[in-house]
Amino acid sequence: MNSIHLRKKNTTKWFRDLRNLICKDFEYFENKNAKKKVKFTRSKWKKSKIKSEGGGEISILRNGNIFEKVGVNISVVNGRFDKNFKNKIPGTKKSSKFWASGISVVAHFQNPKIPSLHFNTRYIITSKEWFGGGMDVTPCIKDDKQKKYFHQELKKMCSNHNKNYYKLHKLNCDKYFFLPHRNEPRGDGGIFYDYLNSDWEKDFLYTKDVGKVFLKIAKNIIQKKMKQKWTKKDKGKQLIKRARYAEFNLLHDRGTKFGLSTGGNIEAIFMSLPPLASW
Amino acid sequence: MNSIHLRKKNTTKWFRDLRNLICKDFEYFENKNAKKKVKFTRSKWKKSKIKSEGGGEISILRNGNIFEKVGVNISVVNGRFDKNFKNKIPGTKKSSKFWASGISVVAHFQNPKIPSLHFNTRYIITSKEWFGGGMDVTPCIKDDKQKKYFHQELKKMCSNHNKNYYKLHKLNCDKYFFLPHRNEPRGDGGIFYDYLNSDWEKDFLYTKDVGKVFLKIAKNIIQKKMKQKWTKKDKGKQLIKRARYAEFNLLHDRGTKFGLSTGGNIEAIFMSLPPLASW
Repeated sequence: MNSIHLRKKNTTKWFRDLRNLICKDFEYFENKNAKKKVKFTRSKWKKSKIKSEGGGEISILRNGNIFEKVGVNISVVNGRFDKNFKNKIPGTKKSSKFWASGISVVAHFQNPKIPSLHFNTRYIITSKEWFGGGMDVTPCIKDDKQKKYFHQELKKMCSNHNKNYYKLHKLNCDKYFFLPHRNEPRGDGGIFYDYLNSDWEKDFLYTKDVGKVFLKIAKNIIQKKMKQKWTKKDKGKQLIKRARYAEFNLLHDRGTKFGLSTGGNIEAIFMSLPPLASW
Repeated sequence: MNSIHLRKKNTTKWFRDLRNLICKDFEYFENKNAKKKVKFTRSKWKKSKIKSEGGGEISILRNGNIFEKVGVNISVVNGRFDKNFKNKIPGTKKSSKFWASGISVVAHFQNPKIPSLHFNTRYIITSKEWFGGGMDVTPCIKDDKQKKYFHQELKKMCSNHNKNYYKLHKLNCDKYFFLPHRNEPRGDGGIFYDYLNSDWEKDFLYTKDVGKVFLKIAKNIIQKKMKQKWTKKDKGKQLIKRARYAEFNLLHDRGTKFGLSTGGNIEAIFMSLPPLASW
């Protein structure tokens, strides 16, 4: 098996393993003290009905005790970029062919004290190849202690790989998750990276650690906050903040635009959208 | 006073008068049998803080007995189109200057049996001048009788002006209010027209009649449906349909894009977005 095949196989296996880990841990939280057992439902989709261009699996849990809606998607797709995307993406000058594998998670919670959580990582091959991904958190109620904890964990993890990663990838995140029409950041920031292509093994290790630290942080935040009391006013704030979330994803998000214009699976693309939002 | 000044004055007066009529009639419905009196709140905005480029008035009524959220906006603005819009709009080759006056209404109801209602009309001057506008209804529960009534009223009104208007303006509406990513129409359609410039007096009369028939239809539909019983399941359908509404407005609507990229007032632009939506 040549190296590119191994790379495809290993990244895909990792994204699937991580999906299994996340779903298992989230279901554990959901059900450990609950009368009403709630599980993820899983559905498969194919990118093309006629061609073998891969597809994905959507795992969704709705109306839980803790999670109001959480989606964990994995996908392995290939094909050709259409002319709108060609040339905007590295390594597509000679050929528009691509291969991509990734995982994406968005969680919206019943308790407005728990911030919305977003994470994704991916490995993409054109005539070039690279890793990308990251995570950000969107609280509707300010919590400086949580923000500090979140960024400390990210910084610690990043610094194990490269002393510049935290600073650079945090800056990417701050720039990207910003609503220009409201002149406000989406949330507390996080880290994001793209076109990472230094040393394959090292980049893959970093990408794996980003996934691991996401799960660690998510579990920590949920555990700390899930029993905190909240008011109707807090819920109102959450619904307003979630409308901003929908605005960002529908007006600005590159992933949403990419998905919609490449004929991606609607349910997978809109998995990120909130279970309830108010304008 | 020259004719262009008179035209500006008369259209602006009409849009304001119509706003007053709509708010009065909607408030009447809202309060005639209600214990809890609910009124429109009105706020003014200016297009520019430094220059005299006009502005608008937002009238919003929220959490009513009948209306969950209804906005009635009027605006009179002027300025220059930026380079992204210049050349896309008639009469901007030599000068990017424009003047525009209009009214816009979106109503979302407590009772899921009542469809969401949308209407707007406008008069725009560049080196050319024209009228535009229309209306559409978005039910979340199919009602063929209502759809038939709605289109009959539109056809009758249109035919008083031009035998082709209904057919042409209905087609515009069907084409425009369509969600390509879901391959589904937004609702039951309606009529839409733009760049209408046949005979100024006639075009203005048509535009006035579009406003009058909107109010007639809205009152008729509300009156028929406001006392109909509905279930939790109906409400769930409404929240899902409203998410489609938000998708359309944020992903596709030209007015939203235009407003956001010309620095329009956020509250006025997003007045159309639903009070509660579910993905």
